[in-house]
Amino acid sequence: MQVEGLSINLATIREQCGFAEAVDVCLKHGITAIAPWRDQVAAIGLDEAARIVHSNGLKLTGLCRGGFFPAADALGREKALDDNRRAIDEAAALGADCLVLVVGGLPDGSKDIDRARRMVEEGIAAVLPHARAAQVPLAIEPLHPMYAADRACVNTLGQALDICEALGAGVGVAIDVYHVWWDPDLAKQIARAGRMKAILAHHICDWLVPTKDMLTDRGMMGDGVIDLKGIRGMIEAAGFLGAQEVEIFSADNWWKRPAEEVIATCVERFRSCC
Amino acid sequence: MQVEGLSINLATIREQCGFAEAVDVCLKHGITAIAPWRDQVAAIGLDEAARIVHSNGLKLTGLCRGGFFPAADALGREKALDDNRRAIDEAAALGADCLVLVVGGLPDGSKDIDRARRMVEEGIAAVLPHARAAQVPLAIEPLHPMYAADRACVNTLGQALDICEALGAGVGVAIDVYHVWWDPDLAKQIARAGRMKAILAHHICDWLVPTKDMLTDRGMMGDGVIDLKGIRGMIEAAGFLGAQEVEIFSADNWWKRPAEEVIATCVERFRSCC
Repeated sequence: MQVEGLSINLATIREQCGFAEAVDVCLKHGITAIAPWRDQVAAIGLDEAARIVHSNGLKLTGLCRGGFFPAADALGREKALDDNRRAIDEAAALGADCLVLVVGGLPDGSKDIDRARRMVEEGIAAVLPHARAAQVPLAIEPLHPMYAADRACVNTLGQALDICEALGAGVGVAIDVYHVWWDPDLAKQIARAGRMKAILAHHICDWLVPTKDMLTDRGMMGDGVIDLKGIRGMIEAAGFLGAQEVEIFSADNWWKRPAEEVIATCVERFRSCC
Repeated sequence: MQVEGLSINLATIREQCGFAEAVDVCLKHGITAIAPWRDQVAAIGLDEAARIVHSNGLKLTGLCRGGFFPAADALGREKALDDNRRAIDEAAALGADCLVLVVGGLPDGSKDIDRARRMVEEGIAAVLPHARAAQVPLAIEPLHPMYAADRACVNTLGQALDICEALGAGVGVAIDVYHVWWDPDLAKQIARAGRMKAILAHHICDWLVPTKDMLTDRGMMGDGVIDLKGIRGMIEAAGFLGAQEVEIFSADNWWKRPAEEVIATCVERFRSCC
C-alpha cells in the first residue's frame, strides 16, 4: 500500500544502508518518494542511481546538497561554484524536484557574517543560469541559528526569501521544521513564501528536549516539541502540497536501529503526528 | 588600577568561588562592576551580599535572574510571579541596574510556543508594577533560538523590543552577543533599542567553533567568531555606554581554571578584543 505524501531523506538511514538498499526498504513500506545525498549517489554511481530512480518511478523531493559558497579567497569560491554546477547536473540526471542548498557559514578566520551572507547571494547568483538551463530549482534551506558559524549563515525563512526576491526565478526555499520552528516570524514568512510560490520542499523531524548534540540528536516526529501539524497547516495554506520529507540525524538512537524499524516508525508517526 | 567599562558576571567563576571570594578576585584585578546570580547571593545571604556590595562601592550591572514565566497551570504561573517579585526585591536591596529575565520556554508537554510567548508577556506585565515601585528595571534577555524550548521563548532582540513597546516604562533588554550575533536583523534592532532607550545591559563572551555543548561551552572573548567590536560599536552608537559584562559558561575550560587566571584573561581580552 502506497504511503502518499511521505518522502524519506536517505540521511535518516545513512548509517544502515547504501542507496539501493535504502530504496528497497522504502519501497517495501510503500514509500515512493526519497531524497538522497550526493555521497550516497556517488557511492553507487550516478548512472546506477538514476537507473534505480527511473526504473522504480521514484519521486525525488530533493537532492542534498549544494551550497557552502563562502570561502576565504577567490579560488575557494570558484571551486564551490564548480561543485555546485556538478550538483545541479546530478540533480538533473536524477530528476530531483530541487537541489537543496546548505549555503555555508563563515570562511576560516572570518568574523564578518554580513560578508559571508553577501558571498552566499553572489554564489547562488553565479550558478543560477546553470540551474535554470538544467531546469533544477535551487532550494535555499535556512538552517537553525546554531549553525550560523559553520554550516549556514542563512538562518531564517525571511532571510532566504529576501535572497529569492533578489535573484528571481529558479530559486526557492526548503522549509525544515527543525530549523525554523522557533521563529516568531514563521507564520508570516510561510505565507509570504506561498505568495512568492517559493516553497520547494518541506522537511520534518522533531526537536528533542534536551538536545544532546547540536547536529546528530534530532528526533522522530512526535518525540519532541515541534507543532508539526500546525506548521504543516501553514505550509499547505500557502499552497505547497508536496510530500513531507523526513530527515533525521540521530547518532545515538535512530541510526543505531534497523532501517526497517526506522522506516516503519516514520510511516506510523507520519500518520499520527504530522 | 581600575578597569573601566568591564563587569564580571559571577557565573564566569561560579565553580571556583562563592560571592565574597569572587568579589575579592574582581577587586584585586581592578574590576568594580559585577553581576551576581541569585543562588550566589542566597548562599552568603542577601544582607551580607548587600553589605559587601555597598561597602566596596560595587556597581551591579544586573542581577541574574528572574523569568521562567510559562507554566502548565495557573498555580505554576502564580508561583513564578511570586518568585519574580522576590527577585525584584533582591535586586533593589543590592542596588542592581536591572533584573535580568530569562523568560522561560514551553511548559511541560506543550508544543504551543505562541501561547508560551503570551504567558511571558502576561507574566512581565503582572510583575511590572512591583518592579516600577522598587525602581528595578526589568531586562528581557533574548536567548539564542537553541534555547527556545527549555529556557527562553523570546529569541530575538526584535521580539524582546516588541514586548517592551507593549508594556511601556520599566522594561528593557539585556543584549548578550552570544545569543544575538547571528541575527540578520541585529543592527536594525540595536538601533531601535537605542531609540527606545531600552538597552539595560551588554553581555559578552564568544561563540566557539565547534561548540561542543549547547549550554556550557561558551568561549572567552577572542576565541570565537563573534565580531565583538562591531557589535559594541552598534550598541554605543545606540547610546548605551554602560559596562560590558563578561558571562562565560564553560564547564570543560574556564570553570576548571583558577579564578585569578580567568579574571586576568577577561581583563586582557576585554582590552584587546572588545
